[in-house]
Amino acid sequence: MEVITTRNELITHLDRNNRNGRSIGFVPTMGFLHEGHLSLVSKAKEDNDIVVMSIFVNPAQFGPGEDYEAYPRDLERDMALAKEAGVDFLFTPSAMEMYPTDGGIRILPGRQAEVLCGASRPGHFDGVLKVLLKLFNMVDPDRSYFGMKDAQQLAIIETFVRDFNLRTEIVRVPTVRESDGLAKSSRNVNLSAIERSEAPGIYKALQHGQRMVGIAAPHEIEKAMVEFITQETSGKVDYANVLSYPNLSEAIDEDSEIILACAVKFSKTRLIDNIIMSTKDDTSCSE
Amino acid sequence: MEVITTRNELITHLDRNNRNGRSIGFVPTMGFLHEGHLSLVSKAKEDNDIVVMSIFVNPAQFGPGEDYEAYPRDLERDMALAKEAGVDFLFTPSAMEMYPTDGGIRILPGRQAEVLCGASRPGHFDGVLKVLLKLFNMVDPDRSYFGMKDAQQLAIIETFVRDFNLRTEIVRVPTVRESDGLAKSSRNVNLSAIERSEAPGIYKALQHGQRMVGIAAPHEIEKAMVEFITQETSGKVDYANVLSYPNLSEAIDEDSEIILACAVKFSKTRLIDNIIMSTKDDTSCSE
Repeated sequence: MEVITTRNELITHLDRNNRNGRSIGFVPTMGFLHEGHLSLVSKAKEDNDIVVMSIFVNPAQFGPGEDYEAYPRDLERDMALAKEAGVDFLFTPSAMEMYPTDGGIRILPGRQAEVLCGASRPGHFDGVLKVLLKLFNMVDPDRSYFGMKDAQQLAIIETFVRDFNLRTEIVRVPTVRESDGLAKSSRNVNLSAIERSEAPGIYKALQHGQRMVGIAAPHEIEKAMVEFITQETSGKVDYANVLSYPNLSEAIDEDSEIILACAVKFSKTRLIDNIIMSTKDDTSCSE
Repeated sequence: MEVITTRNELITHLDRNNRNGRSIGFVPTMGFLHEGHLSLVSKAKEDNDIVVMSIFVNPAQFGPGEDYEAYPRDLERDMALAKEAGVDFLFTPSAMEMYPTDGGIRILPGRQAEVLCGASRPGHFDGVLKVLLKLFNMVDPDRSYFGMKDAQQLAIIETFVRDFNLRTEIVRVPTVRESDGLAKSSRNVNLSAIERSEAPGIYKALQHGQRMVGIAAPHEIEKAMVEFITQETSGKVDYANVLSYPNLSEAIDEDSEIILACAVKFSKTRLIDNIIMSTKDDTSCSE
């Protein structure tokens, strides 16, 4: 595995003129790797000749008062895990390398960003689109891999790629969970022992909601999920919603997929989870 | 010359995997070609193996009440001129081909778009960045050619390419003028005979301003240019400004280039022109 820290090195190694037709699979991450990230690498290795992972805690997608400083980091451990998983090139740029200049151009997502995490994290998805357009242009990947845990991010990225003809294919990869159902997340280390024991209640609430689809109205399912989380955890529900997927609208027609999605604030961190499913049956599409 | 109307044909002909290392020079236009466009083609031919021109009157960059409908079009004549100039591929997509979907994601320019044309054409440069990001991703050019007549557009595009690592090099090409000094523009055909005879007064006003640089303050130069145009033409001055280039700020330091730029409204159309020069001497850099 080659560790790269500058754009120039990326170009030297991976410019399309030097690739000899080999395909690149790209796994953008913020590091503190867990099995969710490694499942992205595993899928990328299946599909491509070369796997590039980036590790960059992107300041542009954290708001004031959010956990940019507290976001967990362990580059040494990440390098060992990435190497073991078969990453060929690990790109770990500094903030200065990523953002040496700023002429003030912004990429604003549309209505998809007004709900769920976008409602309580203004500017978050601007920062996500900014760093991804840069990373896509730097790495020029044939395929890019995203976890379905960040379902809203994935929906917005798919729209960006579709509407602006970005030259990478977006591949959805199912959420990886702990044995008790908690979605793997770098932020899980910031839970206290008690919070960690309660946190599987988030996924249980989503499964509870899932069983109500087709029987109860969306607002009733949402209310039931909030009640479930409030009873089972000490966390504060940021949102619990049922929307169409991937357009994230309240208008759900019979043919659309739907997403049940929650965000819950604990003392030091905020966790998200979701289930994406067809409205036709109760089979989850996300796993 | 091959005429192409769909993105799929573009990919078939020009995908980087099928290029065998041949370089592509790209000339995006809105058609109704004149010598200014042909000078872009000529420069692109010098630098590249293949020249791609696009002709697309981009609705996204026209505001309500602007001249989208009146913008002159003559595809047959354009095809003959492009072929004669040596264009290899002419891309003439429909609006439906360019914008089949719209998830509401917008690209907003920064402060560079708050002055000059941006001040009186809100949303104009959003539309320019939108269509260019799409075209760059469709054509994947090594180099892209832009005329210095649209100096603000050029400055914003250079910032976009720099800050977002777009994979094309932007090449500046000097403004081409009629023998009487009027900048070549597709919009010149929408001038009445009298207006056409007055219109060279715009460039004369800029030259008048140019002679004052280093002697008078920017606001005095601006005032003099407005007076000059008001006396010499029946047009209405939209703006006449002296700014730093390419950051388009009022703060002009000794090392920066400056732009003298005007926009003048005539009965049926609005013309723009500029001179870009060093503050160190009175040599125009634009030509």
